[in-house]
Amino acid sequence: MPVRLNSAQADFADAFATLLATKREISEDVDASVKAIIEDVVARGDAAVIDYTARFDRLTLSPETMRVTEEEIEAAQARCDAGALQALALAASRIRAYHERQKPTDTLFRDALGVELGWRWTAIEAVGLYVPGGTAAYPSSVLMNAIPAKVAGCPRLVMVVPSPGGVLNPLVLAAARLAEVDEVYRIGGAQAVAALAYGTPTIAPVAKITGPGNAYVAAAKRRVFGHVGIDMIAGPSEVLVIADDSANPAWIAADLLAQAEHDTASQSILLTDSPALAQAVEREVEAQLATLPRAEIAGTSWRDYGALIILSSLDEAPPLADRLAAEHLEIITRDAEALADRIRNAGAIFLGPHTPEAIGDYVGGSNHVLPTARSARFSSGLGVLDFMKRTSILKCGPEQLAALGPAAVALGEAEGLAAHARSVSIRSNRL
Amino acid sequence: MPVRLNSAQADFADAFATLLATKREISEDVDASVKAIIEDVVARGDAAVIDYTARFDRLTLSPETMRVTEEEIEAAQARCDAGALQALALAASRIRAYHERQKPTDTLFRDALGVELGWRWTAIEAVGLYVPGGTAAYPSSVLMNAIPAKVAGCPRLVMVVPSPGGVLNPLVLAAARLAEVDEVYRIGGAQAVAALAYGTPTIAPVAKITGPGNAYVAAAKRRVFGHVGIDMIAGPSEVLVIADDSANPAWIAADLLAQAEHDTASQSILLTDSPALAQAVEREVEAQLATLPRAEIAGTSWRDYGALIILSSLDEAPPLADRLAAEHLEIITRDAEALADRIRNAGAIFLGPHTPEAIGDYVGGSNHVLPTARSARFSSGLGVLDFMKRTSILKCGPEQLAALGPAAVALGEAEGLAAHARSVSIRSNRL
Repeated sequence: MPVRLNSAQADFADAFATLLATKREISEDVDASVKAIIEDVVARGDAAVIDYTARFDRLTLSPETMRVTEEEIEAAQARCDAGALQALALAASRIRAYHERQKPTDTLFRDALGVELGWRWTAIEAVGLYVPGGTAAYPSSVLMNAIPAKVAGCPRLVMVVPSPGGVLNPLVLAAARLAEVDEVYRIGGAQAVAALAYGTPTIAPVAKITGPGNAYVAAAKRRVFGHVGIDMIAGPSEVLVIADDSANPAWIAADLLAQAEHDTASQSILLTDSPALAQAVEREVEAQLATLPRAEIAGTSWRDYGALIILSSLDEAPPLADRLAAEHLEIITRDAEALADRIRNAGAIFLGPHTPEAIGDYVGGSNHVLPTARSARFSSGLGVLDFMKRTSILKCGPEQLAALGPAAVALGEAEGLAAHARSVSIRSNRL
Repeated sequence: MPVRLNSAQADFADAFATLLATKREISEDVDASVKAIIEDVVARGDAAVIDYTARFDRLTLSPETMRVTEEEIEAAQARCDAGALQALALAASRIRAYHERQKPTDTLFRDALGVELGWRWTAIEAVGLYVPGGTAAYPSSVLMNAIPAKVAGCPRLVMVVPSPGGVLNPLVLAAARLAEVDEVYRIGGAQAVAALAYGTPTIAPVAKITGPGNAYVAAAKRRVFGHVGIDMIAGPSEVLVIADDSANPAWIAADLLAQAEHDTASQSILLTDSPALAQAVEREVEAQLATLPRAEIAGTSWRDYGALIILSSLDEAPPLADRLAAEHLEIITRDAEALADRIRNAGAIFLGPHTPEAIGDYVGGSNHVLPTARSARFSSGLGVLDFMKRTSILKCGPEQLAALGPAAVALGEAEGLAAHARSVSIRSNRL
């Protein structure tokens, strides 16, 4: 049964803290195996990748067949359902338009002393995109990871996707093409992450790796972090719906279940000041579960981690929402914008009754790679900036050095760094 | 002896690759101890922090004396050298002015379909700043970490700084005050990182932890990552100087040594098309080393990791500089800007003969927390964005849902996520 809380109950603070602290993920300890796989790929290159692919994906590869050819991608595209392809193209164009607006501008200015300073943004030179195979192969995720990288201007975007038994999802390949991915390799797991990070004779190394994966992929990303950049380590997904009695309980139930069907570790929470709405939503969830293909997953998630929280007033919602820091926040109340303005922590906010989260998952244009497990307190969804880096620029002439030099010398000396001080004073002596 | 390479030599590619691959850090394996310390702080709170402080810092604390009082900070400030304080105030005001320009603007727009979308930036609610004690206690680092957080608007900024034997650097406390740090605790090591991440009865938890530290601090930051945000794990520092025969060899030598005096694992590299300059710089380094207080550290760094690379032409410099991806890049050539424009990977660029890196370390205004160990290929120096996060916003009305809904339904079905499709179609049925 989902948790039922009421902010009026005496132990609400403790009960809410317990809900917050609930761990929804059992992290498999695969770190030792992953360490060995990475070391083997570093030592033996392609041969190691080919061995692990034979073992884990039951697929025999050679260096020549690791890469998915242009012809295969075209053939896959031709096999896709026309409606799905069209929907994918609409999604791609909207994602591209949204992310174009995230491109940062360089800043260069001259201050009152005449010092020239600022910064400049450049795209990361090569990016690897991990795409899961099997049941969790989502073409929409290919778009969400690849398009921001291409909008950023990354000249080389490399996708890896395991093909267990040789099977690849054609819509995933079609998405790679739409998103202008430059190279696709049919490999996965820790061996694919190692190949991207360290390179092999067939696969040139990249500088950053993004994209979701299983426990092996997550452990491998943690291990190569530092040698290359990585995006966040994705945890189980969640939605928080804040609603008042103006909301349609069937629609809210559908949204809670859309979250719950991802994974048994997903979490769906309703915050409302209407006990009648909460009751109606709960009934609706049960009714809709009856006809849902993934009812087992969604039902388990809802029973294990779902929560209905009744508030005395919606004024109580913002601090609770900030502590939950949900990946997805739907606000379905009479004045959704005003409530949204009072909330600090959320990965994405969906406003009003006609914005189900699934629109944002696919075709809204914003990114669906969002901070999970309360990390919206300190991090953001994927965007163009994740594929760029900033270089600061500083230029002094003799006058500026004369103006700033004494303070730099004083601080260098105060910190016991005489060579720092000297690198300034040696120039001042010449002024 | 520093490495000497010449791009004309037959094995230059291999020799350069070897230079690139040189590991400059022996990472102490302290992870098991750190894991135990964190678990103990989670279990026992203040009592654990107090025990570890007694053991590692030889300092007896109580929950009441963990926090550094306002009076102590004022008294410390009064003990500081007036010149150093004045220099620190100049640095603070310049750092603040530079970072004010990094504040992002929110974006909200309505697309052709009438969908409202965009994003909004908010400051992280509480940030912890780790400041090393002892010899590596640098007041300038306090400013570089704290001021961007305050410019971002973080309402609570908590500093921890170990005080071995009870001794605190007064200039570090003065810097904390200048930077408007809200709380200061005299604790350090993995126990301080754990206290910041998980909280104790005396120290409320933060959402992100930044700042440099020793192997224990780095391991603790890696361990708490995910529960809270962290900044990069800093490695040994480096400078790359690109110079032609217009450069003054004594100035370049001083800059190479300013880098080398940080740490025996620091690296100083000169790229030049002038063999005469390289020779003169090498002589100057030896001459200046003779009178340097930290000659032992700087000399070891220079002999173990220093490099002089002669190029046939400066046109060879950009691809080599991109592979080195130096934390600090000085360009002292006749047309420094044009060369800078051709280089993609660097943490910070210092242009022209009158911009020694030490100016940027202290009073330039830009941040001195920069990506080390080649990570400028994929990451940026510390800035205001590191203390903020972006929430995406999406709002559809009935018309927009009708326009986008069918594509979302098609993609939900193609991905086997029927509840996603239903959360859209259940609303369309009502349109």
